[in-house]
Amino acid sequence: MDLSDCSLNTITVPSLSLQQIVDQALRRGIPAIAPWRDIVQAAGVEEAGRIVRASGLRVSSLVRGGLFTATDEAGRRTAIEDNLRALEEAHALGTDCLILVCGGLIGKDLVGSRAMVRDGIEAILPHAAAAGIRLGIEPLHPMMVTDRSVIATLGEANDLAERINSPFVGVIVDVYHVWWDAYLWEEISRAGTRVLGHHVSDWVTPIMGQLSSRGMMGDGCIDLPAIAAAVRSAGYGGSVEIEILSDHWWAQPADHVLDVALERFVECV
Amino acid sequence: MDLSDCSLNTITVPSLSLQQIVDQALRRGIPAIAPWRDIVQAAGVEEAGRIVRASGLRVSSLVRGGLFTATDEAGRRTAIEDNLRALEEAHALGTDCLILVCGGLIGKDLVGSRAMVRDGIEAILPHAAAAGIRLGIEPLHPMMVTDRSVIATLGEANDLAERINSPFVGVIVDVYHVWWDAYLWEEISRAGTRVLGHHVSDWVTPIMGQLSSRGMMGDGCIDLPAIAAAVRSAGYGGSVEIEILSDHWWAQPADHVLDVALERFVECV
Repeated sequence: MDLSDCSLNTITVPSLSLQQIVDQALRRGIPAIAPWRDIVQAAGVEEAGRIVRASGLRVSSLVRGGLFTATDEAGRRTAIEDNLRALEEAHALGTDCLILVCGGLIGKDLVGSRAMVRDGIEAILPHAAAAGIRLGIEPLHPMMVTDRSVIATLGEANDLAERINSPFVGVIVDVYHVWWDAYLWEEISRAGTRVLGHHVSDWVTPIMGQLSSRGMMGDGCIDLPAIAAAVRSAGYGGSVEIEILSDHWWAQPADHVLDVALERFVECV
Repeated sequence: MDLSDCSLNTITVPSLSLQQIVDQALRRGIPAIAPWRDIVQAAGVEEAGRIVRASGLRVSSLVRGGLFTATDEAGRRTAIEDNLRALEEAHALGTDCLILVCGGLIGKDLVGSRAMVRDGIEAILPHAAAAGIRLGIEPLHPMMVTDRSVIATLGEANDLAERINSPFVGVIVDVYHVWWDAYLWEEISRAGTRVLGHHVSDWVTPIMGQLSSRGMMGDGCIDLPAIAAAVRSAGYGGSVEIEILSDHWWAQPADHVLDVALERFVECV
C-alpha cells in the first residue's frame, strides 16, 4: 500500500516527542499521525494542537480512552472523567476518532465487566457526539482480557456497537488482535462503515508477555493485504495506522524503525 | 466438586511414570487418569494397557492426536499415520476419547490450514468409529493459532463437528482456552452432548509464553464453577480433567502439586 493512507502511531517510536514525530512524518511523506495521550500531555494539550495544525498533518485518532471497568463506583466515575478529558484532547488535536481500549476483567465477572464498558461508553457518548468525535471500540486479543479489554473479538465489538447504535460509535480493526478469528471476514463485512480505524503490525512467535510483543509487518504470519482489502471493501476509507508495541523495536533507533516500517508498509500491507 | 468425577491428566506431573501416576491416583481416590502419549510410549503400549487395567482406573482420554496441518502432502500423510497409532494406543488403554490438538497455521493461510484439519479428521474417522473411540476437537486459546491449533474457539470447533456430523466427533471444553469468550455459554449449550471432555486449570497473569503458563485452579480469574455447571447442563456427564501445563508447577515436587491440585479441585471447581 502506498503511503497516501498511512498514519504513524506514536507508540511505534515512543522515544520521540510529538514535535519529533511530526517532523519525521513531514520529512518521510506520511500524511497522518495517531498520538498516544502521554506525548500529547507531555507537549501540553494546547501546544500539541498548535504543533499539529501548523504541520498540516491529519490526526487519524487519539489513543486512548476507555478503561471503563473498576471495582467500585468511584473508580468508574474517575474513568469517565478521564475519558471526558481525552475527548477534550481529541478536540484540541482536531481528530474525529478516540480509540477505546475498553478495560480489563473485574473479579471473575465477564458479564458485569462488559456491562461496565457499555455503561461507560453511553456515559461519554453525548459529549463525543457534541464534539463530533467518534468512539472506536477496539477489540484486543483474547490474551489481554484480564488486563486491558473484556471486548476480545470483532464480533463482540460489533454486538456492542449495534446495541448502542449511534453514528458516533464504531469499531477498530487492529490486525494483531483479530487476525486469528475464523469469523473475521464476516465481522468486518458486518461492521461496514462502522469501521473507524485499521491498525497494522504482525504476529511473530514466540509471544512473550501480552502487551509488547508485536512484530513488524512482513515478519509474521498475518495476511495483511487480505485484511486491508476486506476493510476497504466494507467501506472504510481512512488511514492505516502503523502501531507496533514491541520491546524488540523499542530498543532500536527511531530512524531505523521508521525506515523499516515504511518500507514494509509499502511492500507488505 | 468432589473427586468422583476427577481425572488426573499426566502432564500436570510430568516427572511421574504411568505406574507412578496410577499409584498416586489409587492412593488419593482419583477414579480416572488422562495420559499423554509420551508416558504411554515410555511404558510400552501393551504394558501401559496392563498397568491401567490392573488398576481399575478409568482412562478419560488420551492426549493427543491431531497436528494435521503440514506444508506438504507427505507431512499430512505422516500426521494421519501418527493419528492411527494414537487410536491404537487409545484402544490399548481402553479409553473412548482421543483429544485432538488440531495443528498450527501453515504459511499465512488460515482457511487452507483449517481445511487440512477437517481432511485429517475425516481421514481417521472411520478407524476411530471402528474402534469405538470418539475424537475430541479441542479449541486452543487464540494465542496458540500459529503453533498448535487453527481451531481457536468453541464456536469454530462446533462448526467443524457439525459439518463432519458423526457421533464419533465432538468437542473439548478446556477452561484455559475458552474462558474469555463472550459466546462461550451459547456455544457450550450448542455443543450439548457433543462435549466429550472438560479440562480445568486457571488463567493467572502475566502469561509468559503460549504453552506452559497455566495456573492452579483458584489462583486466577476463571469462573470455574460457572463453566462446570454449563458443561453439566449441556449434558456432559464425564470426567473433569486436571490439566496444568506450567513451568511454575513443573518445578515443584509432584506430591505437593497433587496435594494442592486436589484441594483446589474440591474447593474451586
